[in-house]
Amino acid sequence: MSSMFTPDSNLELFFPVDLIPAQVKAQLHPDVHLRPLASTDYHRGHLAVLSVLTVVSDPGESNWLAQFRSMRAALNTYYPIVIVSKQTDQIVGVGCVFIERKFLRGLGSVGHIEDIAVDKNQQGKKLGLRIIQALTGISESSGCYKTILNCSDDNIPFYEKCGYQKKENEMAKYAPERPQPSARL
Amino acid sequence: MSSMFTPDSNLELFFPVDLIPAQVKAQLHPDVHLRPLASTDYHRGHLAVLSVLTVVSDPGESNWLAQFRSMRAALNTYYPIVIVSKQTDQIVGVGCVFIERKFLRGLGSVGHIEDIAVDKNQQGKKLGLRIIQALTGISESSGCYKTILNCSDDNIPFYEKCGYQKKENEMAKYAPERPQPSARL
Repeated sequence: MSSMFTPDSNLELFFPVDLIPAQVKAQLHPDVHLRPLASTDYHRGHLAVLSVLTVVSDPGESNWLAQFRSMRAALNTYYPIVIVSKQTDQIVGVGCVFIERKFLRGLGSVGHIEDIAVDKNQQGKKLGLRIIQALTGISESSGCYKTILNCSDDNIPFYEKCGYQKKENEMAKYAPERPQPSARL
Repeated sequence: MSSMFTPDSNLELFFPVDLIPAQVKAQLHPDVHLRPLASTDYHRGHLAVLSVLTVVSDPGESNWLAQFRSMRAALNTYYPIVIVSKQTDQIVGVGCVFIERKFLRGLGSVGHIEDIAVDKNQQGKKLGLRIIQALTGISESSGCYKTILNCSDDNIPFYEKCGYQKKENEMAKYAPERPQPSARL
């Protein structure tokens, strides 16, 4: 298989690559590579993979990059990872954990896993499991006393296989609709 | 009633006071005052109120203050609020919302409400409701498309009264026990 994926050393990565657990990388399917989000991943299909989850509008590259830098400026908070196909250098899986600092539990921290998505053409490679393992590892090595995530009823068995247990209920309130910028005169 | 509570202008506040919705302040019980967490709140019983929720060990004032500054250094991320008794200047309620930035939903943001606690001697003043209203207001005026929180089955009716609806399931994984520092030689 010809490999055309960009090596980590040629990328501006969101966080240091050695925070990703070595044992997760060692178990990764050989077709793919797991690394931190890079500043040029807008061009590798990052938003296309996220669109499996919800509404994803394209903000354009400069706004995407501004978000990348804004999130990174919140030091030691966001840890977004991607899985790229070694053959195409395109993103086939994404996930993020952000570390919330608290005053309770002896100034404890909690890792929140968000926005896990895997390309539908990559079934059977356990990429979802590897993403959860990598993010849980980052959370725990950052000192978090627990890692949490929200999921639908259908996905509970998958997360149980990842070592998670149902705990509480997610409650949500959606903001009132705001006027779209295009509606303004 | 003699009032000895410290005015906002004499405090170093976590975030600008005008981010707290005026209509929530207007509805607040007259015995109390709602404001951002202040750098001296370690001395106003902040950790005692949090201990209603879970394990709270006292890290000492200097570590508490370092956490305050570290969280504030993550710009536009954490919005911790407190309710103080006007009579005693002690904290009787706390809550926090942190704003998570995302790549999906047109670079959208989500508000996560965490660590709501109210002193058990303050029942009947709707302080829990005011805390949720204030944090939801901060979240929505920050542009979050939704605000979420996790709660037990027992607390679902309360959050429904606050305008929230059950959405998904919270899954949690606790980190393996780590050696305590005191166990090291």
